[in-house]
Amino acid sequence: MPFSSINDRMQFSTEKYQKVNLIATDRSMLDIYCLLPGQKQDLHAHQGNDKYYVVWRGEAEVTIGNETRRLEPGDVAVAGPGEPHAIANPAQRPLVVLVFQAPNPF
Amino acid sequence: MPFSSINDRMQFSTEKYQKVNLIATDRSMLDIYCLLPGQKQDLHAHQGNDKYYVVWRGEAEVTIGNETRRLEPGDVAVAGPGEPHAIANPAQRPLVVLVFQAPNPF
Repeated sequence: MPFSSINDRMQFSTEKYQKVNLIATDRSMLDIYCLLPGQKQDLHAHQGNDKYYVVWRGEAEVTIGNETRRLEPGDVAVAGPGEPHAIANPAQRPLVVLVFQAPNPF
Repeated sequence: MPFSSINDRMQFSTEKYQKVNLIATDRSMLDIYCLLPGQKQDLHAHQGNDKYYVVWRGEAEVTIGNETRRLEPGDVAVAGPGEPHAIANPAQRPLVVLVFQAPNPF
């Protein structure tokens, strides 16, 4: 199915942040991460793939390597292979981030 | 540079639609396409790579294979390797679309 929608698929949980896959191919994948205030994905790295963040709604605190920035809707970041990265919701409202990964890590 | 911004980089021209690269790596790239009313990218295909559209602002008419849909902000589409795809701005206001490609075709 070549079509999907962020608005139809966003979902939140008080237990932990939600990863929702919108589209995946053998080569790449497009997810949304949905974080309530205070939720985060801890610092980690992927060998061999690029991971892009695009803030869709809310505010994000994104770390790439040893640099941390506060990002708003339309702001973009990328972590290359082996590069540590993390994301958190430092604000008082929900955060939705587009996450594009290639090659598909799964 | 691992950070960029859609809002800082969007640009339009009455001559033709504008492709602006936000971030590129050896493996993948993230562009924005900026289309004024009536502008379009004609049907074409890429061998060996995936191309994702995410509508950021405005309305898009996107064709993937033999299916054409009207897309709004947050709507997503993907064209796989060899799959014909096209995009047009059918509305009366500017269109900005995020375009992810992997592997990087250039």
